[in-house]
Amino acid sequence: MELYSGYVNKLVDELAALPGIGNKSAQRLAFHLINLPEDKVQRIAKVMTEAKANVRYCRECYTMTDTELCPVCADPQRDHSTIMVVENVRDQAAYEKTGKYKGVYHILHGAISPMIGIGPGDLKVRELVERCAGDVKEVILATNSSLEGETTAMYISKLIKPMGIRTTRIASGVPVGGDLEYIDEITLTRALDGRTEI
Amino acid sequence: MELYSGYVNKLVDELAALPGIGNKSAQRLAFHLINLPEDKVQRIAKVMTEAKANVRYCRECYTMTDTELCPVCADPQRDHSTIMVVENVRDQAAYEKTGKYKGVYHILHGAISPMIGIGPGDLKVRELVERCAGDVKEVILATNSSLEGETTAMYISKLIKPMGIRTTRIASGVPVGGDLEYIDEITLTRALDGRTEI
Repeated sequence: MELYSGYVNKLVDELAALPGIGNKSAQRLAFHLINLPEDKVQRIAKVMTEAKANVRYCRECYTMTDTELCPVCADPQRDHSTIMVVENVRDQAAYEKTGKYKGVYHILHGAISPMIGIGPGDLKVRELVERCAGDVKEVILATNSSLEGETTAMYISKLIKPMGIRTTRIASGVPVGGDLEYIDEITLTRALDGRTEI
Repeated sequence: MELYSGYVNKLVDELAALPGIGNKSAQRLAFHLINLPEDKVQRIAKVMTEAKANVRYCRECYTMTDTELCPVCADPQRDHSTIMVVENVRDQAAYEKTGKYKGVYHILHGAISPMIGIGPGDLKVRELVERCAGDVKEVILATNSSLEGETTAMYISKLIKPMGIRTTRIASGVPVGGDLEYIDEITLTRALDGRTEI
């Protein structure tokens, strides 16, 4: 016999399928949601579907935005000839929070990982090369300092350097194995300042 | 300037307001949701609002159910004269998973906590006393062994015992498989006080 209502079980299953939410948290969340006022639950559901429906990739850098060009790419104050390549939007957010970086970004949406079958074709690599055909002076590779991040940086540098563009890698002030989004702003800034040619 | 789209920010805010979800997890979840196929996001939103709309309290025990009587209360095989009192539906689920308990439940939906202003009137205590007017032989108090849980158990026992109903409290002690050196002093003291002949 099922203890919970079928509606509760379905909700627990959906929540437990989300990243970082185990079965216990899913139950806790499900009961929390069910105990909320009905209009609040409907608002959360609406915000979720609206975000999905309206958020798209920026035409230039492939970050998530609800306009054709993201605020960074649309900003004439930013240095559009310097592109920082990051794995995902959270990593971009981490660098953006330092307030020290004045260039633009390129979001790969992942890193090369043969282990789980992710190749350059699954990432926004071709799009980066196309951007580099324009007026680009420097490409800063700010992928994570994990095996996948390093592989991705090497792969991209081999495509970009022959185009005569300065290609740099953020310094290993970032601890090896560390995930950019969890690193403090000072370390991120130091890693940026200490970038070297590769 | 806001880095993320307003839609993303709204979604992150809603998710971060849920229990046990911090700002980082909320960002991670938001991007995960936005990267899901549209029909999947709509399904999650639907499951959420449907659960809220259809799940109600069982007429007898106040667990969450989508029928008037929950499966346990509707089961003639269960011993309806033994009521186990628990703080919430997750605690009920934990006992139900043991498969050893054959009685029914009563869900208080919280515990007495003067610190955060929760009194007996905020819990399903009156409803328990009303149930006890019927054919009830034993009330097992299975609230948590926290200050709030103990207070609640004491409070309820003072209401139920004078009605001539056997009122018991689940044993408190060293958990099975627990290593003595990692167990707190209060638990060790309780385990000693509650020792039984072997």
